[in-house]
Amino acid sequence: MATNRSPEIRKDAVHNRWVIFSPARARRPSDFKSKTDASSSANTHTECPFCAGHEHECAPEIFRFPPESSLDWKVRVIQNLYPALSRDLEPLNAERGGGGQVTLRGSGFHDVVIESPAHPVHLADLSPAQIADVLLAYKKRIDQLRSFDSIKYVQVFKNHGATAGASMSHSHSQILALPVIPPTASARIQSMKEHFEQTGECAICQVKQEDLSIHESNHFRSIVPFAATFPFEIWIIPHHHSSHFHDIDPDMASDLGGMLKLMLGKMSLQLKNPPYNMVIHSAPLRAESTELAFSHWFTQIVPQLTVVGGFELGNGCYINPVLPEDAAKVLREVSVQ
Amino acid sequence: MATNRSPEIRKDAVHNRWVIFSPARARRPSDFKSKTDASSSANTHTECPFCAGHEHECAPEIFRFPPESSLDWKVRVIQNLYPALSRDLEPLNAERGGGGQVTLRGSGFHDVVIESPAHPVHLADLSPAQIADVLLAYKKRIDQLRSFDSIKYVQVFKNHGATAGASMSHSHSQILALPVIPPTASARIQSMKEHFEQTGECAICQVKQEDLSIHESNHFRSIVPFAATFPFEIWIIPHHHSSHFHDIDPDMASDLGGMLKLMLGKMSLQLKNPPYNMVIHSAPLRAESTELAFSHWFTQIVPQLTVVGGFELGNGCYINPVLPEDAAKVLREVSVQ
Ligand SMILES: Nc1ncnc2c1ncn2[C@@H]1O[C@H](COP(=O)(O)OP(=O)(O)O[C@H]2O[C@H](CO)[C@@H](O)[C@H](O)[C@H]2O)[C@@H](O)[C@H]1O
Ligand SMILES: Nc1ncnc2c1ncn2[C@@H]1O[C@H](COP(=O)(O)OP(=O)(O)O[C@H]2O[C@H](CO)[C@@H](O)[C@H](O)[C@H]2O)[C@@H](O)[C@H]1O
Repeated sequence: MATNRSPEIRKDAVHNRWVIFSPARARRPSDFKSKTDASSSANTHTECPFCAGHEHECAPEIFRFPPESSLDWKVRVIQNLYPALSRDLEPLNAERGGGGQVTLRGSGFHDVVIESPAHPVHLADLSPAQIADVLLAYKKRIDQLRSFDSIKYVQVFKNHGATAGASMSHSHSQILALPVIPPTASARIQSMKEHFEQTGECAICQVKQEDLSIHESNHFRSIVPFAATFPFEIWIIPHHHSSHFHDIDPDMASDLGGMLKLMLGKMSLQLKNPPYNMVIHSAPLRAESTELAFSHWFTQIVPQLTVVGGFELGNGCYINPVLPEDAAKVLREVSVQ
Repeated sequence: MATNRSPEIRKDAVHNRWVIFSPARARRPSDFKSKTDASSSANTHTECPFCAGHEHECAPEIFRFPPESSLDWKVRVIQNLYPALSRDLEPLNAERGGGGQVTLRGSGFHDVVIESPAHPVHLADLSPAQIADVLLAYKKRIDQLRSFDSIKYVQVFKNHGATAGASMSHSHSQILALPVIPPTASARIQSMKEHFEQTGECAICQVKQEDLSIHESNHFRSIVPFAATFPFEIWIIPHHHSSHFHDIDPDMASDLGGMLKLMLGKMSLQLKNPPYNMVIHSAPLRAESTELAFSHWFTQIVPQLTVVGGFELGNGCYINPVLPEDAAKVLREVSVQ
């Protein structure tokens, strides 16, 4: 990978934010010990509350796949025992205090999706059809959650490995149903709207460059975005313009299962099993029909290779030492058996 | 600290963004080993390129305090050897590619401020007068940088400890001079503008609640902000409304030096020497005179106690397990000898 290229600052049409690309930074020394392997700091527990047989140690179940199974379930959706938002609070209007302070009751839903009954099995180890089951569990739960008027946005995300934020090592993801539209989602809608007004096209439908592409399947393509915030960040985009993840059908889910398995496999092989986050970016639940024309859902995968420092934390501008074309080439070429 | 309170969602007038406060989350278990002490993973090098006597291993010096000193300097401002932006590139207009892609040449300045000649001495170990020297070195360098027309914003920040992003353990901070206004700074200006238009007051001048206050000095007060993004986040705010950090004078710098020493001391004692980031939030260099009425600079200190997960990374909404009033009370009461 060329490291003597000049730095560039790129803005992308999806988030309308600047990212600094600085290949030279990749060479800087460190006098701290580093740790990158997602499994390295996990305790070698082979049993935890998320394992089959330990269901009674968990918060209440919402549903399981297959539905009537007793012990041989594949996927469980349960309440989060330490929820960030409470399902027992009545939603209330925002309270305005002095100094422009606004407080909202923390009402909402916070669930955990257990992706496998077996402790050592990670998402990438599942078959495409099994990953499809996890995706269809997200869909089913979102379909339940969107019947609540107070819920404005549903965020599906996954933390894999301690440095990606995980507190539990058993393979799982989370679903958080919020009474507000979170900042990045509103900024994205706004930015994609401006792009649509200027060009008449959806900014994500327009992403077509060969050099950013990793793989194409029947329904999806995976790319490294033009102004990727993080090194080796991956986006998986449905070919067909669609605003909401929850409109996915079983055929698309199994195609996406294969794509996810391939991307996680390539990432693990090339980047030595890194901790990672996966986030599904969908439109707000009650997006207006005009908004549907320029909102296009996608899945973001971010391997955790760098630590965010004061610069990014303070001003929201990220420094990425790897140019997206270089990352895409590497990921395109690494072959998973 | 009460942990059985209901979750709350707060929005503050400074950033116009939501933060979820969830005291219950503080109790969740983890099956990963944790590390929090900033010094724990630092190699025990006692000499590095930032040490006195190793000046020749560094990128070129910009200036030192005191100016003419040979080996007994107190503070050095040097070029960053692996700069994120290049001082040798002529600034160029943005290039617009297909699909709404915008690229800007990575021109700018990236400097390192070495805060002490001695390897084991950290910022918090310096006297208020010595910390004032570091602050006045920032000021002097910003005064040089703002003479360049192409520079729109100067970001001063500090990473302390590996999990706060530091790659060098010798006490230092960084100054990055950018040809664009970074996302958080523009969002802050916009949000403070709206607040000013609605209330006729600067949102930061208005922050006066006793229960969020930690300490008051002649020129500054330290608080935990009403909608703190991170647990035990601290803001140090000048009493007098002022938009730019670089307008600081030696008297204010030494007062701020004392305040910083006190805050870092309290944080270290209460939170067991955590890794932290420090960021100075100032107005864009060429802020219009109308903007000066509602921009108020402040210093943010963030101890790194939690790991950012997929939720925050994906949607910019943070989950903070510690209510600001509780954090402020703890920090107010812990006494540093
Ligand atoms: N017996 C049980 N039954 C049901 N649920 C149980 C349970 N035991 C634990 N849980 C829940 O399981 C979840 C596991 O989630 P993760 O490991 O992905 O990270 P966590 O949410 O802890 O925090 C990470 O992700 C969030 C969101 O990104 C960040 O705020 C945070 O800093 C980061 O560490 C936790 O939310 C926990 O509350
Ligand atoms: N001999 C020498 N002479 C001059 N300069 C030298 C030098 N040797 C090293 N340097 C520079 O010294 C700086 C030390 O900075 P820090 O330790 O605060 O973190 P760093 O910038 O590496 O990255 C952290 O901060 C940035 C910005 O927040 C994040 O992008 C990143 O992920 C995070 O790890 C580096 O920028 C390095 O380039």
